[in-house]
Amino acid sequence: MRGCLISGQRGIIRSGEETGMTRLSTTASGVFVIAVTPFHDDGTIDEGSADQMVDFYRSCGVSGLTILGMMGEAPKLDTGEALAFSRRVIRRAGDLPVVVGVSSPGFAAMRALAHGVMEAGAAGVMIAPPGTLRTDDQIVTYYDQCVAAIGSDVPFVIQDYPQGTGVVMAPGVIRRIVMAHPSCVMLKHEDWPGLEKISGMRAFEKDDANGGPMRRISILTGNGGVFLDFEMERGADGAMTGYAFPDMLVEVIRLQRAGERDVAHDLFDAHLPLLRYEQQPGVGLAVRKSILKARGAIASDAQRQPASRLSTTARAEVRYLLSRLARRDPRAAGLSID
Amino acid sequence: MRGCLISGQRGIIRSGEETGMTRLSTTASGVFVIAVTPFHDDGTIDEGSADQMVDFYRSCGVSGLTILGMMGEAPKLDTGEALAFSRRVIRRAGDLPVVVGVSSPGFAAMRALAHGVMEAGAAGVMIAPPGTLRTDDQIVTYYDQCVAAIGSDVPFVIQDYPQGTGVVMAPGVIRRIVMAHPSCVMLKHEDWPGLEKISGMRAFEKDDANGGPMRRISILTGNGGVFLDFEMERGADGAMTGYAFPDMLVEVIRLQRAGERDVAHDLFDAHLPLLRYEQQPGVGLAVRKSILKARGAIASDAQRQPASRLSTTARAEVRYLLSRLARRDPRAAGLSID
Amino acid sequence: MRGCLISGQRGIIRSGEETGMTRLSTTASGVFVIAVTPFHDDGTIDEGSADQMVDFYRSCGVSGLTILGMMGEAPKLDTGEALAFSRRVIRRAGDLPVVVGVSSPGFAAMRALAHGVMEAGAAGVMIAPPGTLRTDDQIVTYYDQCVAAIGSDVPFVIQDYPQGTGVVMAPGVIRRIVMAHPSCVMLKHEDWPGLEKISGMRAFEKDDANGGPMRRISILTGNGGVFLDFEMERGADGAMTGYAFPDMLVEVIRLQRAGERDVAHDLFDAHLPLLRYEQQPGVGLAVRKSILKARGAIASDAQRQPASRLSTTARAEVRYLLSRLARRDPRAAGLSID
Amino acid sequence: MRGCLISGQRGIIRSGEETGMTRLSTTASGVFVIAVTPFHDDGTIDEGSADQMVDFYRSCGVSGLTILGMMGEAPKLDTGEALAFSRRVIRRAGDLPVVVGVSSPGFAAMRALAHGVMEAGAAGVMIAPPGTLRTDDQIVTYYDQCVAAIGSDVPFVIQDYPQGTGVVMAPGVIRRIVMAHPSCVMLKHEDWPGLEKISGMRAFEKDDANGGPMRRISILTGNGGVFLDFEMERGADGAMTGYAFPDMLVEVIRLQRAGERDVAHDLFDAHLPLLRYEQQPGVGLAVRKSILKARGAIASDAQRQPASRLSTTARAEVRYLLSRLARRDPRAAGLSID
Repeated sequence: MRGCLISGQRGIIRSGEETGMTRLSTTASGVFVIAVTPFHDDGTIDEGSADQMVDFYRSCGVSGLTILGMMGEAPKLDTGEALAFSRRVIRRAGDLPVVVGVSSPGFAAMRALAHGVMEAGAAGVMIAPPGTLRTDDQIVTYYDQCVAAIGSDVPFVIQDYPQGTGVVMAPGVIRRIVMAHPSCVMLKHEDWPGLEKISGMRAFEKDDANGGPMRRISILTGNGGVFLDFEMERGADGAMTGYAFPDMLVEVIRLQRAGERDVAHDLFDAHLPLLRYEQQPGVGLAVRKSILKARGAIASDAQRQPASRLSTTARAEVRYLLSRLARRDPRAAGLSID
Repeated sequence: MRGCLISGQRGIIRSGEETGMTRLSTTASGVFVIAVTPFHDDGTIDEGSADQMVDFYRSCGVSGLTILGMMGEAPKLDTGEALAFSRRVIRRAGDLPVVVGVSSPGFAAMRALAHGVMEAGAAGVMIAPPGTLRTDDQIVTYYDQCVAAIGSDVPFVIQDYPQGTGVVMAPGVIRRIVMAHPSCVMLKHEDWPGLEKISGMRAFEKDDANGGPMRRISILTGNGGVFLDFEMERGADGAMTGYAFPDMLVEVIRLQRAGERDVAHDLFDAHLPLLRYEQQPGVGLAVRKSILKARGAIASDAQRQPASRLSTTARAEVRYLLSRLARRDPRAAGLSID
Repeated sequence: MRGCLISGQRGIIRSGEETGMTRLSTTASGVFVIAVTPFHDDGTIDEGSADQMVDFYRSCGVSGLTILGMMGEAPKLDTGEALAFSRRVIRRAGDLPVVVGVSSPGFAAMRALAHGVMEAGAAGVMIAPPGTLRTDDQIVTYYDQCVAAIGSDVPFVIQDYPQGTGVVMAPGVIRRIVMAHPSCVMLKHEDWPGLEKISGMRAFEKDDANGGPMRRISILTGNGGVFLDFEMERGADGAMTGYAFPDMLVEVIRLQRAGERDVAHDLFDAHLPLLRYEQQPGVGLAVRKSILKARGAIASDAQRQPASRLSTTARAEVRYLLSRLARRDPRAAGLSID
Repeated sequence: MRGCLISGQRGIIRSGEETGMTRLSTTASGVFVIAVTPFHDDGTIDEGSADQMVDFYRSCGVSGLTILGMMGEAPKLDTGEALAFSRRVIRRAGDLPVVVGVSSPGFAAMRALAHGVMEAGAAGVMIAPPGTLRTDDQIVTYYDQCVAAIGSDVPFVIQDYPQGTGVVMAPGVIRRIVMAHPSCVMLKHEDWPGLEKISGMRAFEKDDANGGPMRRISILTGNGGVFLDFEMERGADGAMTGYAFPDMLVEVIRLQRAGERDVAHDLFDAHLPLLRYEQQPGVGLAVRKSILKARGAIASDAQRQPASRLSTTARAEVRYLLSRLARRDPRAAGLSID
């Protein structure tokens, strides 16, 4: 039962009553939902929806939130807005840990945002590498520089997303970063294909060669969750993705842990047609926001400019997918989009 | 019924008894299956399996074959092998049109292969742009040069596959190529996301501005078929992909044309978990060949070096997906892989 | 003589005594030097050197300054630092127009910086496209969005630098941006090779087809100045680059305008070995700062982390190049680096 | 004097009278000129010019030839033409070693060409990595596969040219390839910037850590020779580039070896303006062929389609550069282009 989760199970370490802060740790698991950023139709941030959205995600049973990610329209916020939005979400999330994306073309901006959100109570930060990196050493050096910039006391997540960043990280490169930096506590795994990579990372934990076993870190998977069914079986600890039914992701993870493999796959497969549709770059965010609006998580599906839009045909396709889903998952019953 | 298809329905034009050749035309539709290249375990081409594979694909109801594509291990064949394999497949295919991939870093090799396979009776050729192209004009000029190289009498297919090639073709660029070259008869559409692009291309056919309507060409979709359900509804004429159950693709297309939308989606959705699994780069070909072997289409799932391989875990995953599929589609009943 | 330049000759429009602001215009010419950002050895911004540097550049006869460019270590400054540094330089520059680089992964940050520096008296801003853009339309749309973000009253420079950005802009794309946006006043041309592109852009001004002639904009060239000799002859109005001898660039431009072709080339050729050496990515900035320090323009050649460094051998090479240069240009007489 | 060179000095090993073949070895040095492919105006290969060109290069004092490189229009030749042209050049070159570029998207074509040219008497082959490679391991594995394809008895050159291939090879990656494959005898170094990389590779030869010293290989530099002056001082053994004055490159190398540093730089600097001009992608080949024609090395400067062309202005620029060069180097005296 979600309500009885304690912080240890969520992979966070509460640092004491005096600070009230939680820190992301290597034992984090479950769903860290990639939160959207709610806007009013006029493009201003919808603070009421921010609270409402946090409550919705909590009711879905997520273990944490990730904000200011690629699907969170982070680049459309200026520095002040990003910090204010982070503060509001962190405050509302309470004991739910919040990870903040701080990827940036420069270390100064990264440092400023990381310090700001950690002071505000974030559990940790997530960093994707810039697309200019190529060699193994360049990638390792980059994360060395990140740690120097944000401080070695700030827990961080490596975002391994080659389709988005253009940077391919060999498993051994991730291992080197993990070995060098105790503050690296999690891998957001979204290489593709990626099942063997999860197996390979887990094998490093038992590896006696190459400088000894790698310490265990948390592995949450992304890529829209499109392989979550098998990723859990390969050793992932959960998902970090923003599919508009995070409650389904939570349930699949619960079922897998409970050994109910077939039931887990049945539920996952029922969602796969829509999940695949929502995973499309660009238009996917419009799908996600329109469903989150329909589910009452946010008041408007508006995106700040430049925005992706659903054509009339695409809206009809989403409605059709929802109606088909409703036949197999009551979560979708009666749901439709404008 | 598949058996009663005549060449016109398949979108080919028979050029007369004296040549026995068929030519790809803009009316091509249905499934043009991306054929694998069968090898013996020692890496030599398995000619017996080539025949067997053609017969298998024919029995699946495909409208044509595409060989020497990216998933056909084309770069592992030398010039002589590529031509010999093409000849064998074309001969066995008989009245089934065969499209041959002739993409090449140089026009000399492209011309030589295109002429060789057309003389052998190929219906047309397919050309993907090299990754160095960037601007609209560069892409248009490249296809001008291709037509100069292969001859304006050779029907060709534009392969629009940005994830594989790195080249992004705006719809207007494809329009320019189509308008400039009557021998451009088909678009292999595998941009991603791509549904709106199909709609956009079809809209060009009614466009009175911008130099008048674009003539209609055939649009077959790729990307492993992962959006085939909606692509057909958007105006695609069929699929050009190599999923190990081409008979399912044929059936989905038939159902869509017959207006049986729900049944089409039901069948498609039943396959989506496996189809998604097979669509993974690299390992996907190993999945495909292992299932084609299990279905009796080829004698060995061997790939020529460098080959992708399925781990023990991956093989178990494919078996599990097949067993789940068997519950919803009798085509998979009793199927397993080694 | 530099001192007698009036604002019209520098391509700026003074908007009146009440504002004291100057605006970049299409008649800008001469050298807009890409300024470095001076740091103390401890990594803090050296404000004294900022003033000193402005004075040095002024004494070299430059027509303007460009700050926060790629060679200005812009990503290493946080938002507050970037704005404070801009204000200081703009104030010191007085009647010398200052262009500020505002390229950013997001429009919110771009808008904030653009507004901040324009309020502080910048003459205009410069924008390079993000590396994700591919098609002609994507690039044109991007600049539409930039203008929407910064406001149509802010003069801007298109930075056309494919080697750095990965974005290739066809001449026709630049033309479309210029035609659509009166606030586009300058092209920083650093495509490579680029001589024909300059000729092509100038030809657009006389083009009666394709929607009529393009209005004339200023073209300043970059790429370290390595083709400045011929770029001037092709129709460029000057250079926007940061070579440590901007006075040489100013002189070459003056000589070309005066019709002293051979003398211009003689001077340029004398510098080419060092100029080429300074143009190397990464290490080039270390070369530039070490020479600027030797020339008294800045107090320290420190870069903020992550910094490029000159090896002992590289330092000796620079000294050797300076000593050879001194034989042909008195500007280098007696100059050496640590 | 060039005529007295013996094979050992050229870095080749003569394998015996019975074969007449020479093999490229790690002691290769001097200039291995990147030869053009001469065409008649109608696009057919000009075999007479091929012989004439070999004789010209020999008279320039080169130590070897490299054919079918990127500047040799290799992709414009079909398989048969490539092999025939290689045979002709190898025969004419006699005791001059010939390296043949065999880079290919597939191992089958690479194997076929490598075997063909080695049988014809080539000294070795050169391989650039395909642009899809990213991680260190991917690059190392790729060269493992190349050696498996061409055979471990075929001497090969690693072409390290990131600007052209998009593949960045860390020095340690090159070291791994060298350590794994005795048949790797040479590095064609054209990373940019690259001076420190040469120093780094040479340092590996004295490195006692990391598995012991790397065996010494030959390092010839490319990039149009634009840093040859310092590359020699950093430890390069010579140049592999195609500048239209290979005799200048030979002389600079001779002077550097003789300790005549200043004279070497004087000669190099005299050529730098033209050399820089010729190094431009695309148009550079047109410059090179037009000068080679003017020098009597080939009968026509025609390129096979698609060809780059010099505009009227560009031709005038080349003539101007030649006239200026003639004042400092008698090699250019009286030279002009059409």
